[in-house]
Amino acid sequence: MNTPAPKPVSASRVESIELVLPNDTNPLGNILGGRVMHLIDITASVAAMRHARHRVVTVQMDDLSFHHPIKLGHFIILRASVNYAGKTSMEVGVKVLSEDPLTGVQEHTSSAYLTFVALDEDGQPVSVPQLQLETEEDTRRFAEAEERRNRRLAARERARKNENNS
Amino acid sequence: MNTPAPKPVSASRVESIELVLPNDTNPLGNILGGRVMHLIDITASVAAMRHARHRVVTVQMDDLSFHHPIKLGHFIILRASVNYAGKTSMEVGVKVLSEDPLTGVQEHTSSAYLTFVALDEDGQPVSVPQLQLETEEDTRRFAEAEERRNRRLAARERARKNENNS
Amino acid sequence: MNTPAPKPVSASRVESIELVLPNDTNPLGNILGGRVMHLIDITASVAAMRHARHRVVTVQMDDLSFHHPIKLGHFIILRASVNYAGKTSMEVGVKVLSEDPLTGVQEHTSSAYLTFVALDEDGQPVSVPQLQLETEEDTRRFAEAEERRNRRLAARERARKNENNS
Amino acid sequence: MNTPAPKPVSASRVESIELVLPNDTNPLGNILGGRVMHLIDITASVAAMRHARHRVVTVQMDDLSFHHPIKLGHFIILRASVNYAGKTSMEVGVKVLSEDPLTGVQEHTSSAYLTFVALDEDGQPVSVPQLQLETEEDTRRFAEAEERRNRRLAARERARKNENNS
Amino acid sequence: MNTPAPKPVSASRVESIELVLPNDTNPLGNILGGRVMHLIDITASVAAMRHARHRVVTVQMDDLSFHHPIKLGHFIILRASVNYAGKTSMEVGVKVLSEDPLTGVQEHTSSAYLTFVALDEDGQPVSVPQLQLETEEDTRRFAEAEERRNRRLAARERARKNENNS
Amino acid sequence: MNTPAPKPVSASRVESIELVLPNDTNPLGNILGGRVMHLIDITASVAAMRHARHRVVTVQMDDLSFHHPIKLGHFIILRASVNYAGKTSMEVGVKVLSEDPLTGVQEHTSSAYLTFVALDEDGQPVSVPQLQLETEEDTRRFAEAEERRNRRLAARERARKNENNS
Repeated sequence: MNTPAPKPVSASRVESIELVLPNDTNPLGNILGGRVMHLIDITASVAAMRHARHRVVTVQMDDLSFHHPIKLGHFIILRASVNYAGKTSMEVGVKVLSEDPLTGVQEHTSSAYLTFVALDEDGQPVSVPQLQLETEEDTRRFAEAEERRNRRLAARERARKNENNS
Repeated sequence: MNTPAPKPVSASRVESIELVLPNDTNPLGNILGGRVMHLIDITASVAAMRHARHRVVTVQMDDLSFHHPIKLGHFIILRASVNYAGKTSMEVGVKVLSEDPLTGVQEHTSSAYLTFVALDEDGQPVSVPQLQLETEEDTRRFAEAEERRNRRLAARERARKNENNS
Repeated sequence: MNTPAPKPVSASRVESIELVLPNDTNPLGNILGGRVMHLIDITASVAAMRHARHRVVTVQMDDLSFHHPIKLGHFIILRASVNYAGKTSMEVGVKVLSEDPLTGVQEHTSSAYLTFVALDEDGQPVSVPQLQLETEEDTRRFAEAEERRNRRLAARERARKNENNS
Repeated sequence: MNTPAPKPVSASRVESIELVLPNDTNPLGNILGGRVMHLIDITASVAAMRHARHRVVTVQMDDLSFHHPIKLGHFIILRASVNYAGKTSMEVGVKVLSEDPLTGVQEHTSSAYLTFVALDEDGQPVSVPQLQLETEEDTRRFAEAEERRNRRLAARERARKNENNS
Repeated sequence: MNTPAPKPVSASRVESIELVLPNDTNPLGNILGGRVMHLIDITASVAAMRHARHRVVTVQMDDLSFHHPIKLGHFIILRASVNYAGKTSMEVGVKVLSEDPLTGVQEHTSSAYLTFVALDEDGQPVSVPQLQLETEEDTRRFAEAEERRNRRLAARERARKNENNS
Repeated sequence: MNTPAPKPVSASRVESIELVLPNDTNPLGNILGGRVMHLIDITASVAAMRHARHRVVTVQMDDLSFHHPIKLGHFIILRASVNYAGKTSMEVGVKVLSEDPLTGVQEHTSSAYLTFVALDEDGQPVSVPQLQLETEEDTRRFAEAEERRNRRLAARERARKNENNS
C-alpha cells in the first residue's frame, strides 16, 4: 500500500446548490431535517472521493444542529472541504446556507463534520493523501479537526463502556 | 400555555422497516449514509409527534456512527422512542438494525439521538407532556439523555465561542 | 428440495409506519391509492421473505378497498403477517391504519391479502416452511385464508374461461 | 345535482407507456408488484377523470394477478377504459402488457378492475355521465362489469359479517 | 453489419400520459421545464428503441419551447414518432399537450425533435431500419427532418469553429 | 414597472455537482439524457432567479448535444451564468462536465442555452436588471447570445409558418 502524494485542501473543495422542491418539505413548508442530512452526506462524499480518488463510506457524522428552517422554493447551498486526512480516513466539513430567491438573503443554517474511510476495489481501507495546508484557515481547521477527532475517540470509548453495561 | 398530562414512553414508541432499493445505494451496493439519516429523522419525528401531538422540527442530531454497511435488498429496521422531555423539546433515540432477508441475521448498525421542538399552528414552541418513567430502562435512558443534554449545551457554548473567533 | 422446519406466524410479523409526504398525494391532499398499494406490497413482501428466507414475487393481490382517505402529514401504519403457507406460496394479510398526528385518532383504512411465491437463486419456485399455528387467531386466519384460496382458484378458472371466449 | 349527458367509452380511453427504471425493480431485476399497482391506479384514474370531468378517489381494486415478471429496461404498457358508470361511481378496466425493447415481444401481464367515485370541490360524491355503449365489446364489458359489481356487493356483505365476528 | 428490413412509422409510434404530481412542480404550481424534458426524452427513446430494436442514446435535442404552463393535477400527453432514419441515427418528433382534467381542454405546449443513435451490446453504433413512408404526412415530416438535419450539421460546424476560438 | 439597477454576471453565477445514482441511469449504466436536461433546467433557473430576484419560467432551451455519456457513480458538474438580459427575459448558459471520481478526469459533455422570463406574484412578466459586462468574456458571451436570440426569433417565425401549413 503506497502512500499517495499530499494534496491541498483546494483540490477537493465542493460547492453545490439545490432548489427545495415540494417533496423535500414537511407540512409546515420547511425542508425535512433528513433531506438536509442526505444532501450533506452526498456533498461531503464528493469532497472525500476527490481527495482520496477512491470510493468512500461514511463512518460518522458529528452533532448536527439546524439553526434556521429552509423554505419550499428557496435555495440550499452546500460547501464541503476536507479538514483532516489520517491514514485511511478523512474529516470533511460542510457548511449549509439557505438563500431566499426573491431577496438574496443568505443564512447559515448548519455546520456538519463527517468522517469517511476510503476503500479499494475489494472494499478494504486504503491509504489517502496527506493534507497539504496552504492557508492559515487550512491550518486552523486542521487543528480543530484533530481536537474533534480526539473527542470522538473518547466518546467512542465512553459509548463502548455504556453498551457493555446495557 | 397549559402543561399537558404526562405520558409513558410506550405511548409514542415507533418501529418501522424498509426494503433497501437500488436508488438508496452507492456504487458499492450499500445504502447511502444520507439515506439512513433521512429514515432516522422521519422515524424519530413520528415518535416525537406521537408524544407531543404537535408538529415538530428537528433541532439537532447527535454524533451518528455507522458500524456496518446495509446491502441492497436487505431490510433496515428502525426503532424510535422518546428518552427525555423538557419544556418544549424532546430527545428521541433511534436504534437502527439491518436484517439479511435470506438468513435472518440482524446487526446493530447505528444508534442516533435527535432533539425536536414541538410547534403550535403559528410555528411557536409549545409545551410537551412530561415523560412518565415506567421501567428501569426508561429511567436509565432518561438519565443518560440528561447527561447528553448537558454535554450538548456545553458543546453549543464551545461552538459559539469558536464562531466568534473565526 | 428439502422441506424446511415449520415456523410460527410471530416469526415473520412486520409493522411499519410512514409519514405521508407531498408527492404521495393527489390534488385533494389525500394519499394516492396506488401509493398505498405500493406500501402494502413492500410490507407484505418483507413478511413473506421473513417466513420463506428466500426472494419472493407477488403473484396476486385480492380485492382491496379504501374505507377512508389518508391525509398529507398523517401517518400510515401497515401490519403484515403470514396467514397461510402452501408448498411454495404464501398468503400475507396486511392491515392498513391511518393516524392523525395531532389527535392520535387511528382509522382502519384497508385490509389486503397478497399471494407470494418463493424463488431460489435461479428464479425457480422453492419450498417454504409450514405455518405453525399457535393462537386461536392464527387458526381462524388460516381457515379464512384457505377459503379465500379456494375462491381464488375458482375465480381463476372463471377468468380462464372468459378469456377463451374473448 | 344535474345528470350530465352520456358519453361513449372512446371519449375517456387512455394508453400510457413507461420504461422500467432501476428503482422500480427488486433485487431479481423485475418490476416491483407495488410499482405496477401504482401505475395501474394512476392510469385508471386518468380514464375516470376523463369520463367524469371531476376529481376522483379510488374506492376499490379487484383481485390483481401478475402472470409474468417485467424486466428492468423493458416497457410497461397500460390501457385503461371505463367499463361501467353508476350514479357517482365508475369501474375502469386496465390491461397491462410488457414489451421487450429488443425483440418487440409483448406479453399480457395483468388485468385490473378499479372502482372510482367522482367528487365535487367540497369532496362530496357527484353524478357522472352514463356510459354510451357503441360497440359489441362495450356491451360485453358493461355486462361483465355489472356482474363483478354484484359479486363485489356480495363480498362486501360477507366482509362486514366477518368483521363483526372478529 | 446487416441492414435490417425497412419499417413503417406506425410500427414505432408511442403515446403516453402522466398526471402532474406535486414534486413535478415549481412554487408557482406549474410543471418544471426540466421534468417535461425528462418525459420527452423517455417517450422519444421508447419510439427510437421500437424502431431500432436496440438500446439507444440521446445525441441531441433541438430547440424546445414551452408555449403554455402545465398545472399541478393536469395531464401531460406525449406523442412520439420517428421522422427520419439514417444509417445508425434517428430523429424522433415529440408533440406535448396538456389536458385540464375538469374541462377536457387540451393545449399544444411543446414540439421537440431528438436525435438518437442505436447501439449494439458492446456500445457500438449499429444499423437501423430505413423508414417506410406510408402517408403524405410521413413524407412531409421526413423532408422537414432532413432539412433540420442539414441545419444541425451546419450548426455543429459553426459550434466547432466557435469552440476553437474560445 | 421600475427598471431595477444593472447587475454583473458574477452576481448570479451558479455551480452545482451531483453524484449519478442508479435511478438516473439507463440499462447501459449511463445517465439518462432527460435527467441531464432536468439538472440543466434547475441549475439555469437558479442563476436566472438570482439575476432577476423573481420567480422565472423556462421559455425555451436551444439545441442540446451530448458529447459523452456520464456513468453511474461519476460526478456531473453544472456551471450556469446569465449571458444576456432583455426587458423581461434572460439567456442562461450552462456548461456540463463529467468527472470520474477515481481518476479526476473531467470531460465537457454538453453546453446548453436556456431562455427564462421573470414573473411577478400575479404571474405577469416583470422587468429584469440589465447585465453589467465586466470582462472580455462577458462581452463575447453577450454578443453570441444576441446572435442566438436573432436566430431564435427567425426560427420561431419559420416554425409559425410551418404550423400554419400543417
